[in-house]
Amino acid sequence: MVDRERVVILGSGWAGFTVARTLDSSKYQAVVVSPRSYFAFTPLLASTAVGTLEFRTALEPIRSRRTKVDFFQGWADDVDFKNKTITIEQAVDDPTQGMALTTDRHAGETKEQREIEKKKSAEKGRLFDLTYDKLVVTVGCYSQTFGTPGVKEHAFFLKDVGDARKIRNRLLACFEGAALPTTSDEMRRQLLSFAVVGGGPTGIEFSAELHDLINEDLAKIYPELIPFSKITVYDVAEKVLPMFDEKLASYATQKFKREGIDIKTSHHVEELRLGAPAERTGSEDENDYHLYTLKVKEEGELGVGMCVWSTGLMQNPFVAHALSDVREAPPNLRLLATSPSANMPPDVKWAVKKDARSGSIITDDRLRVKLIPSDPSSSPSATEAIHPDVFALGDCGIIESTTYPATAQVASQKALWLATHLNKRDVEASAFTYKNLGTLAYIGNWNALFQGGGGGRLQGYLAWIIWRGAYITRTVSWRNKILVPIYWVVNWIFGRDISRF
Amino acid sequence: MVDRERVVILGSGWAGFTVARTLDSSKYQAVVVSPRSYFAFTPLLASTAVGTLEFRTALEPIRSRRTKVDFFQGWADDVDFKNKTITIEQAVDDPTQGMALTTDRHAGETKEQREIEKKKSAEKGRLFDLTYDKLVVTVGCYSQTFGTPGVKEHAFFLKDVGDARKIRNRLLACFEGAALPTTSDEMRRQLLSFAVVGGGPTGIEFSAELHDLINEDLAKIYPELIPFSKITVYDVAEKVLPMFDEKLASYATQKFKREGIDIKTSHHVEELRLGAPAERTGSEDENDYHLYTLKVKEEGELGVGMCVWSTGLMQNPFVAHALSDVREAPPNLRLLATSPSANMPPDVKWAVKKDARSGSIITDDRLRVKLIPSDPSSSPSATEAIHPDVFALGDCGIIESTTYPATAQVASQKALWLATHLNKRDVEASAFTYKNLGTLAYIGNWNALFQGGGGGRLQGYLAWIIWRGAYITRTVSWRNKILVPIYWVVNWIFGRDISRF
Repeated sequence: MVDRERVVILGSGWAGFTVARTLDSSKYQAVVVSPRSYFAFTPLLASTAVGTLEFRTALEPIRSRRTKVDFFQGWADDVDFKNKTITIEQAVDDPTQGMALTTDRHAGETKEQREIEKKKSAEKGRLFDLTYDKLVVTVGCYSQTFGTPGVKEHAFFLKDVGDARKIRNRLLACFEGAALPTTSDEMRRQLLSFAVVGGGPTGIEFSAELHDLINEDLAKIYPELIPFSKITVYDVAEKVLPMFDEKLASYATQKFKREGIDIKTSHHVEELRLGAPAERTGSEDENDYHLYTLKVKEEGELGVGMCVWSTGLMQNPFVAHALSDVREAPPNLRLLATSPSANMPPDVKWAVKKDARSGSIITDDRLRVKLIPSDPSSSPSATEAIHPDVFALGDCGIIESTTYPATAQVASQKALWLATHLNKRDVEASAFTYKNLGTLAYIGNWNALFQGGGGGRLQGYLAWIIWRGAYITRTVSWRNKILVPIYWVVNWIFGRDISRF
Repeated sequence: MVDRERVVILGSGWAGFTVARTLDSSKYQAVVVSPRSYFAFTPLLASTAVGTLEFRTALEPIRSRRTKVDFFQGWADDVDFKNKTITIEQAVDDPTQGMALTTDRHAGETKEQREIEKKKSAEKGRLFDLTYDKLVVTVGCYSQTFGTPGVKEHAFFLKDVGDARKIRNRLLACFEGAALPTTSDEMRRQLLSFAVVGGGPTGIEFSAELHDLINEDLAKIYPELIPFSKITVYDVAEKVLPMFDEKLASYATQKFKREGIDIKTSHHVEELRLGAPAERTGSEDENDYHLYTLKVKEEGELGVGMCVWSTGLMQNPFVAHALSDVREAPPNLRLLATSPSANMPPDVKWAVKKDARSGSIITDDRLRVKLIPSDPSSSPSATEAIHPDVFALGDCGIIESTTYPATAQVASQKALWLATHLNKRDVEASAFTYKNLGTLAYIGNWNALFQGGGGGRLQGYLAWIIWRGAYITRTVSWRNKILVPIYWVVNWIFGRDISRF
């Protein structure tokens, strides 16, 4: 076992978790480094946010009794490609664990300040090095707020289980606040207005599940409050669910309309702040139950009880900073055939190749990180290299000249491909190809949309069964395979659990 | 339905929740006022803290689809006995929801400051009045820290589900921190030292469940860390489990000894502070994973990863302040037969009768609150009255000249008695009597102690079956009756869930 190669996997999302679980432990020592100690099964997050499922059913701990995966809870801070070493900042008690990330933790620090800080952390034992034989970068993306004022501070996200928990607590607090005798009807109407920004599958599914919760469960508990409640989906685009074809998307829109969920396309959210629309200075007392004001370009200011933000990806700061200049190139760097190697200056400085638009890492079709000279003028323009031991996949990696979407499906297919070929030691043998297995979206009321990869379509009850079925089989552990359907049945019989703590 | 009497129930613990659920909704409008929106099934809290059960299985929401109980989330702030009105401060977003209470929220405020604050709250709509026909006071007690420095700030309690969640997160963070390569063995030994203060059933059961978690589950995930872990129970008394007879208590002590749990009786905890023993100024950085230093009179300073405090009750500030002077007596106040009514001055001022030692409210054997003249010198000494519409039970109420323990069993028996007799409208008919049904304590490793009310004893595996069985039947809702055994089975097969978020 001593001669096993060590594969360090940065991140514990769809890509990282799948690689770690699939690597053959007799051949590799898989070590996951991530600020969160679990994998979140994202398709179930909306269900946990409304109480259809318990939070833990959407989680798989990285450490487990059955796998031999090693784990360090920390942030990857830096990479030394030459010495095959990464620097990790421990994050055992990280307060952001479980929450969507919107800001670089070290934003605003100069390079010098950061260096001093790192030195201090190292002395305290908070920073340590880990060597690797192979490095798999699956750090994912942060949530993009497009600089919209107040969104980082006041919006609710839906990327991790802590976000889902915040939403569930807030939702029930809005109803409890609206039930107080001192709450005016106007206040009730605003407290029970829920805005969802982003008409992708996450936003649509969350709206549908929220609608189910309100109309199936809360209607029995707060019957007098239901007329005040309202769900609105905002999107800047002209239509929602862009990954579905016209017919399916308009089926969803029609269905939402009938159920009273407003879909407002071509609408622009300009600001989100604390306090009611009338109050220019929102109460900053976090312990108060309060309104938020959403400013929409087309509508003006609206009081809302909660704004759920589910749109946009922002490049991970680790990718932006640590994975840019390759200060010292690894000795086994491999020049690509297209590169005019004859003309290569021996001391060329390398940089990780990035996608110009998204900032993602560009890889070859074996998911290996591509390098280009950091000063293009010093080298022939076609010069490129690959790092044979460093891979990038998930939302932070793009295979050159492909346009696969940033979805769990792509991430897990890449991860499965990589781990399988590492196990067989034949990464060179064949390129990764993506097989679109179709897209599902739950649209409420026991109903879903399904669009097959080959162009097949399905809607209604049958799609719902596929939706639930797909989730049961894709949910990773047996524990959750058992618990998820149990919760579905128990909540179908007794209603969703509305306890808030 | 308009002529139903309104019964306002302050508190949602064993007593309040049982009264609310048992009152006949065709005869009474039950209104619960409590800062938390659920009832916590306390015997399962230790299990949720170590992951044997999911938190929500120990909760029952007060609002439910099946009962007609009304609910306002708030703190009772004041009572006007004459006008039968209580003042409520809303607590929809109260940050202490789910946590053990150790301090009066308004401690340190003068009467005048509090009045100004109340006026402001009323203007903001945070304070409102509610009239009652009958008032049931079941506000319970706070946790007593005996003024031990640092305990309020740094100890972990086990009174509510938020406490259990904090313990679970901290526990797993200690192991994750100990697993870091930069953590020294000495630091590991301290991080994985868990101190439990209080040798009552809660402290003993928690220690036993923690021992099970470490030895059944964490041993498989962190095998190299187990030798560093240690559980110690401290108690000032000479023996633990004082409610069990000598033989059972020593059986438990022997069993703990064999399993490596130290029970240190006649030990006095003097201080708890942040930071390792060597550091006189503990790091105040809450985001750091840190040690605590426990100062024990008999042992000196010890580094611990967590100190769980499960001893002592402190009188509820609402009982101490709002329920003391009866500013204006209700018109239907009833003088007791023993009072020499002939000599009563007509303008006597009344106060709620309290237990001199604990400060609890004294009631008659129908659980009605007793009143005495606030200035004893102005009235004949035997003068006493009862308030026919105000009841006190649970940990904040004591029937005069009884010594029933402050347990869930007493609280729920009183509550059942009260609601049943209110339903029959025959509170006068017969007095409450307590029937001791025996005491159970889980001592780990599928093993429990049972002591029957009649003196019967049981220990070992049979007691364990009674223990689990009793919990299943006593767990209130069908949802949890189904989920609790499912979790037991699932965790027995797959191990406890160690995901932390």
